[in-house]
Amino acid sequence: REDLASLHEQHPGIQPVLAIVQLVEELLRLNGDPGVHGVFLHLPPSSLSSRVLNSIQPEKDVDGCVLVSFCGPCVEWAYWWSGSTQVMQADVAVLVGDAHRGLPPISIPAFADIEISRSQTPKAIDQLAQEIGLLPEELEAYGRTKAKVRLSLLDRLKEQPDGKYVLVAGITPTPLGEGKSTVTIGLVQALSAHLKLNSVACLRQPSQGPTFGVKGTLYFNLHLTGDIHAITAANNLVAAAIDARILHESTQSDKALYNRLVPSVNGMRRFSPIQLARLHRLGISKSDPGALTPEEAKTFVRLDLDPEKVTWQRVIDTNDRFLRKITVGQANTEKGHSRQTQFDIAVASEIMAILALSDGLADMKQRLGRMVVGSSRSGQPVTADDLGVTGALAVLMKDAIKPTLMQTLEGTPVFVHAGPFANIAHGNSSVLADKLALKLVGEDGYVVTEAGFGADIGMEKFFNIKCRASGLKPNVVVLVATVRALKMHGGGPNVSAGAPLPKEYIMENLKLVADGCSNLKKQIQIAHLFGVPVVVALNVFQTDTQAEIDLVCRIAEKTGATAAVPCHHWSRGGRGSVDLAHAVKEAARQKNNFQFLYDLQMPIHEKIRTIAQKVYGAEDIDLSPEAQAKIEYYTQQGYNTLPICMAKTHLSLSHMPEKKGVPTGFVLPIRDVRASIGAGFIYPLVGSMSTMPGLPTRPCFYDIDLDPVTEEITGLF
Amino acid sequence: REDLASLHEQHPGIQPVLAIVQLVEELLRLNGDPGVHGVFLHLPPSSLSSRVLNSIQPEKDVDGCVLVSFCGPCVEWAYWWSGSTQVMQADVAVLVGDAHRGLPPISIPAFADIEISRSQTPKAIDQLAQEIGLLPEELEAYGRTKAKVRLSLLDRLKEQPDGKYVLVAGITPTPLGEGKSTVTIGLVQALSAHLKLNSVACLRQPSQGPTFGVKGTLYFNLHLTGDIHAITAANNLVAAAIDARILHESTQSDKALYNRLVPSVNGMRRFSPIQLARLHRLGISKSDPGALTPEEAKTFVRLDLDPEKVTWQRVIDTNDRFLRKITVGQANTEKGHSRQTQFDIAVASEIMAILALSDGLADMKQRLGRMVVGSSRSGQPVTADDLGVTGALAVLMKDAIKPTLMQTLEGTPVFVHAGPFANIAHGNSSVLADKLALKLVGEDGYVVTEAGFGADIGMEKFFNIKCRASGLKPNVVVLVATVRALKMHGGGPNVSAGAPLPKEYIMENLKLVADGCSNLKKQIQIAHLFGVPVVVALNVFQTDTQAEIDLVCRIAEKTGATAAVPCHHWSRGGRGSVDLAHAVKEAARQKNNFQFLYDLQMPIHEKIRTIAQKVYGAEDIDLSPEAQAKIEYYTQQGYNTLPICMAKTHLSLSHMPEKKGVPTGFVLPIRDVRASIGAGFIYPLVGSMSTMPGLPTRPCFYDIDLDPVTEEITGLF
Repeated sequence: REDLASLHEQHPGIQPVLAIVQLVEELLRLNGDPGVHGVFLHLPPSSLSSRVLNSIQPEKDVDGCVLVSFCGPCVEWAYWWSGSTQVMQADVAVLVGDAHRGLPPISIPAFADIEISRSQTPKAIDQLAQEIGLLPEELEAYGRTKAKVRLSLLDRLKEQPDGKYVLVAGITPTPLGEGKSTVTIGLVQALSAHLKLNSVACLRQPSQGPTFGVKGTLYFNLHLTGDIHAITAANNLVAAAIDARILHESTQSDKALYNRLVPSVNGMRRFSPIQLARLHRLGISKSDPGALTPEEAKTFVRLDLDPEKVTWQRVIDTNDRFLRKITVGQANTEKGHSRQTQFDIAVASEIMAILALSDGLADMKQRLGRMVVGSSRSGQPVTADDLGVTGALAVLMKDAIKPTLMQTLEGTPVFVHAGPFANIAHGNSSVLADKLALKLVGEDGYVVTEAGFGADIGMEKFFNIKCRASGLKPNVVVLVATVRALKMHGGGPNVSAGAPLPKEYIMENLKLVADGCSNLKKQIQIAHLFGVPVVVALNVFQTDTQAEIDLVCRIAEKTGATAAVPCHHWSRGGRGSVDLAHAVKEAARQKNNFQFLYDLQMPIHEKIRTIAQKVYGAEDIDLSPEAQAKIEYYTQQGYNTLPICMAKTHLSLSHMPEKKGVPTGFVLPIRDVRASIGAGFIYPLVGSMSTMPGLPTRPCFYDIDLDPVTEEITGLF
Repeated sequence: REDLASLHEQHPGIQPVLAIVQLVEELLRLNGDPGVHGVFLHLPPSSLSSRVLNSIQPEKDVDGCVLVSFCGPCVEWAYWWSGSTQVMQADVAVLVGDAHRGLPPISIPAFADIEISRSQTPKAIDQLAQEIGLLPEELEAYGRTKAKVRLSLLDRLKEQPDGKYVLVAGITPTPLGEGKSTVTIGLVQALSAHLKLNSVACLRQPSQGPTFGVKGTLYFNLHLTGDIHAITAANNLVAAAIDARILHESTQSDKALYNRLVPSVNGMRRFSPIQLARLHRLGISKSDPGALTPEEAKTFVRLDLDPEKVTWQRVIDTNDRFLRKITVGQANTEKGHSRQTQFDIAVASEIMAILALSDGLADMKQRLGRMVVGSSRSGQPVTADDLGVTGALAVLMKDAIKPTLMQTLEGTPVFVHAGPFANIAHGNSSVLADKLALKLVGEDGYVVTEAGFGADIGMEKFFNIKCRASGLKPNVVVLVATVRALKMHGGGPNVSAGAPLPKEYIMENLKLVADGCSNLKKQIQIAHLFGVPVVVALNVFQTDTQAEIDLVCRIAEKTGATAAVPCHHWSRGGRGSVDLAHAVKEAARQKNNFQFLYDLQMPIHEKIRTIAQKVYGAEDIDLSPEAQAKIEYYTQQGYNTLPICMAKTHLSLSHMPEKKGVPTGFVLPIRDVRASIGAGFIYPLVGSMSTMPGLPTRPCFYDIDLDPVTEEITGLF
C-alpha cells in the first residue's frame, strides 16, 4: 500500500481503485496456474516494488529474470487503473513472447483476462489489440474501433502452436433464420469472458448492397476498412482493361500496337517484367524488343479476345437490378464495339474469393495474375497477366489483405475479413484471418469461424476448398438449428414478411419438430463424412417449449453429435452460451480424423458426382451438353485438378428450393460449369444464380438516418 | 543535469541526446518571443525539476500557473528524446489553449517548430497531429501516415482568429504543365521550415481512375481514406433507387404502392420522418397514414419520374470508356424498362461537389436531400428527399466529411479533401479543410489551397462559388507560370508525347516569352477584378535562361503583381521556395478589397454574360434554344439565385482549345445549361465535356508492381 501512496502522490489526477495488494494476489494466482508459463509485467516503475517482484515464483520467471516493462504506455495504464475494476488483469498481461528480447513465444493464454465490457461503448481498438498480445507496430488503426492487423504477426508467432479451430455451420436455411452469426459471437463471448479461454471469432464482411452492412451484435460501419471498395476498384480495372484492349486491337496494326505496348523511352525500348512473363508463356525466349519476328510480335500484341467469350463482369456494391443485363460501348468514341454484359454485386467478384483464399501477399498476387477473363478467338484462355494488370491489382489490394480487428459488444476480439458469395464462390471468411487468430489464441485457445448457407454448402466448401488451401485442420463443427426452422423442414407452413407467424411456429408441435430433425440428422452425418465431431447449438426462442428443446437434443445426440446444447445468447449475451462453450471445449478434446471428401486427381464430373451423392443425397448428376463441353475444355487446359465449388440453392439439400427436410430420389442437373482459376476452383451451376439483388418498393434506407449534431445513426439493425 | 542522470537511471534502455540545459535554453528563448503567449510543457514528471519550471517567465505563465502535463505520452516522449535532435522543440509544444482546463485559445504559433524531415520516411501521423496542436480525441488514424480530423476542432477553436488564406492558381494550362501542386507544396514547406510560420496546404484528392492517385510530392495511397469510394456508394445508391422506383411505380397500383411505402408494422402504420417531409412539400398537412384521400395518396406515392428526364448518372472510379453510353435494364426481371444512360468518373458526382462545399454535417445532409435527380412527367423536379434516401446518403458520407491529414516529404501538414471536377463542378478542395486549417495555423499562419485548371476557371469559381459558400476572404493569389508554357501561349509549336521537345522550348526565345505573357497579364487582371493581390510564381526549369526569367518577372510586376518570384522547389524542395514565401508574406500584409464578380440576384443569363465578358474576354454570349429553355425552367423553379459554374475547356480563355494567349473577338456559345441543386450552382455547357476518361493502349498499370516481400510499390510517380 505504500507503493500506492507514492503513486497517488506522483499522479495527483488519478484515483487508484485497485490496491497493490490485489496485484500481488493476482500474481499469486498466476503462480498456481499450470497454463501460465511466464509473466510479463506491464506497469510503471513506481509500482514495481520488491513486494510485487518477489511475489512471482522462480518457475514463472522465464529466461532468468522477470520480464518487466520499463517503458509501457503509462497513460493508458493510468486511465485503466482509475477507470475500471477489470483492468488489473488486463494490465498484468501474461506473455512470454517479447519481441524486443527475441524470446520464442511459448503457449500460454495471451489474453484470457481481456476486459469484458458491460456498456454499449466500444473500447479503443489499440487497447483491445494490446489485450490480445499484438505489438503496436502490428496494428494499423482505422478510426477508433477498427484496425487492420499486419501479416508480419504470422512470422513473429510462427513457432506458436495453433489454437482449436471451430466451424459454425447451420441446417438448411429457412426464412425463419437460424442465427449462425449470433451463435458465433455468443460462443466466443462465453469462451472469453466465462471460461477465460482465449478466443477469436472470424466473420465474413457483409456486403453493403443487401444489408447496409449490419450484422449480429458487432459494431459495423458501412465502409469498414474499405476492402470491398478495393475489390470493386481492382475488379473494374480489369474490366476496363479488357474492353479498351479489344477496342485498341481492333483499330491498330500489329506494328502500331507493338510500338505503343513497347514504346521507346529516351531512345530505349524495353519489355516490362509482366511483358517478359507473357513472352515466356508464349514460348518466345527473347528479351530484346528489336529481336522479335513480325509473327512473334503479332502473337505478343494480340490477345485476340473474343467479345462473345469475355467472362469477366463489372461489379458494384449496390443492389442495382437495372445492371443485371446491360449493353456497353454505345458512345461514338467506342466505334460500334458495343456488347452485352452485366454488373454483379461486388462480393461476387473472383477477387473476393481470392482475398478469402490467399495465404499471403505473394500467393494473392499469383492468384490475381492467373485469373482467366475470357478466351481468345482461337480458344486460348486470356489472363490478368496477359492484360498486364497484375501489379496494379496487387497494389490496389495490398491493404485489403490485412484482416480487420473489431470487437463484440462484450469487448472480445473479432476478425472481419472477406465475404465471398456462398454459391458461385465458397462462402467463408479468409484463410489469413483464421491463421492470425489461431496463432494469437495459442494452443489452449479457440478460433470460431463461420460458413455461409447450410452445412451441405458452406461447411462442405470450408472443408474441401478452404481447408485444402490453408492446410488447417478443423477440430469441431458447431451446427446451428432452431425449433422453428426444424418445424418448417418437418412440413410447417410457409411464412411471408409482414404477415403474422402461423401458430405452428408459436405453439408446441412435437410432430413437426421430429419430422424436421431429418434435416439436422443429415447435416450431422455430412459433417461426420469429414471425420469431425459435431456439437449442435439449438438457438432457443421464447416460444420454444422444453419438450421441443429436449426432443431436438435427444435426436441430435442419438445421431452421433458429441453434444446438443440449448443456447440463450440472444437474451443473455455470452452467459447464454456458457453450456455451448463447455460442450465445444469437450468436443475439441476428442480425437478427430479429418479427411477430404474427394481426391483432387479425380475427373471433374466424378468430383461433382461425389458431392451430389454423398452430401446432397442425389441419385446421380445430369450434365447438360454445355456443362460436358466446359468440363472437356477445362480438362484440356489442365484445370481438372481444382476442387469443386457447387453453385446450388441454399434453401434445400436438393436443387429444388421448395423441397425441405431431406429430399431423396432426385437427379442433380448441372446446367453449366464455370471456373475461377485465380481463386482456384471449378463452379458447376445447378439452376440459375442471381448475382445482383434488387431494391424493394420501400428499401430499408427509408428508416436510416443520421443526426447531424450527435452523429447518431438510426435505422440500422 | 542531475535530472538527466536520474532519468537515465530510470530508463536504462534510453540514451538521451539532449540535455536539460538545452530544454532550459529553449524556454529562455520562448520567454523572449513576443509571439508566444504561454507555454505548455509536455514532459514526464521526472524532468520537471525546479530549474526547468523556474526558467519560465511569469508573463508566460497563463492562468497563474505553468500548464504542466502530468500524464503525457511518455513512451513517445522517450522515443523522440532518444531518436532526434529536432524533437525537443516539438515536445515543448507552445500552446495556451488546453481543452482540459477550458482556457480560450489565444493566437500563437501552435506548430512553428514542426519536425522537418530530411529522410524519405514519413513520421507517424499522431506525431504530426500533436505537433500541429490537435488533441488525440480529434484524430482518427487510418493506418500510420494518414488520419481524419474531426470537425469538433472547429468548435474548440472557434474563438481563434483565422490565418492568412492563399490561393494557388495558374495561367491557362498547356501540355507542358505549370506545376501548381508542386508550387503549393514548396510554398508550405518554405513557410513552415524556413520562415517558421505555421502553414498547411489544402489539396484536392486525386481520382484513382486517371492518375492512380499519385500527385506531387505527397505520400498517397490509392484508396486514401475511402472518401471517393463513399461518394461512389452514395451516388450509386441514388441511381439504383431511381430505376427501382420507376419499375415499382410502373407495375403497382396506387394502393399497393401506398401499402408497401407505409407498411403496417405490428398493426401500426406510420410515416417515416422523410415521408412526412415529402407530405409537407406536397402541401399535405396530415400525419396519420389513414387520413390521406386517394388523390393525396396517389400524389404521395407517385414520383412519376420521366425516364427520359433522369439527369442522375451512375459513377465509377475507373477509366472505363465503354461505360460512356450504355443501356440498362435489359434483363427479363426489369420487364422492358430499359433506358440509355452513362457512367461518369466518380469525382464528377454532384456528391463530390457537395462534399467540397459543405460547411458541416447538417449542411451536407440538407444539400444531399436537395439534389435533383430528374423531373416528373409533369415537369416537377424530383429530389433525393423524394426518393427517401437522404438519411442513408448522410450515413454513407459521415466519415468522408472529415478532412484527411497527411504530410509533405519534409513532414509539414497537408489536408487532402474532396476533388470535384473543375468543369462541370467547381474544381476546388473542401471548404471544411480550409476552415480547419485556418483555425489550426492561427492568426499569423498560412493556409495554401489550390484551384484546378487556369485562373479564369478554377480561381473564378474559387471566388464566386467556394468563397461565397464558406464566407472566407482570400488574402493572396499565387499565380503559377512556366517559361515553356508562356512560350506556347506566345505561338510556340505544339508538342506531342514521346516526341523530343521542339527547340523553342529548350533554347532562349525572348519573343515567344514576351508574346505569351499576354496570358499571364490577363490572368493577373482577372485576379485584380476580385480585389486580391497577386504574386507570380515562376516555376523554373533547367533550360530557362536568366533573361527569360527576368522578362517574365518584369512584365508581371508591370501588370500590377505585388511580386514575381522564380521558384526552384522542384530541385531544392522547400528551400527553393523561400523567396516566394517571403513575397507571399509581404503581399498578405497588403490591404485587400475582396469582392464577388456578380450579384446573385442578377438573372442567370446576365451572370453568364458577366463571366464571359469580364473573365474570358468574350464579346457576348450566344444561348442555344435548349439553354434558353433551361434558364427559364430553372428561373421558374426558383433556382435563379444560384452562382454560375461554367463548364468550359481549360485549354484556352475562349471556348476554342487551340486558341492560346488571349483570344479576342469571339462570342461564347452556351450549348445547354444544367444544374447541381444540392451543390448549389447552375452549370452552363460551353461545348461538350467528357466525364469519363479512357485507357490508352499501354496504360500505366504495365509499370505498376508490388514486391510481395518488401511491400514496396514501383511504377507510381
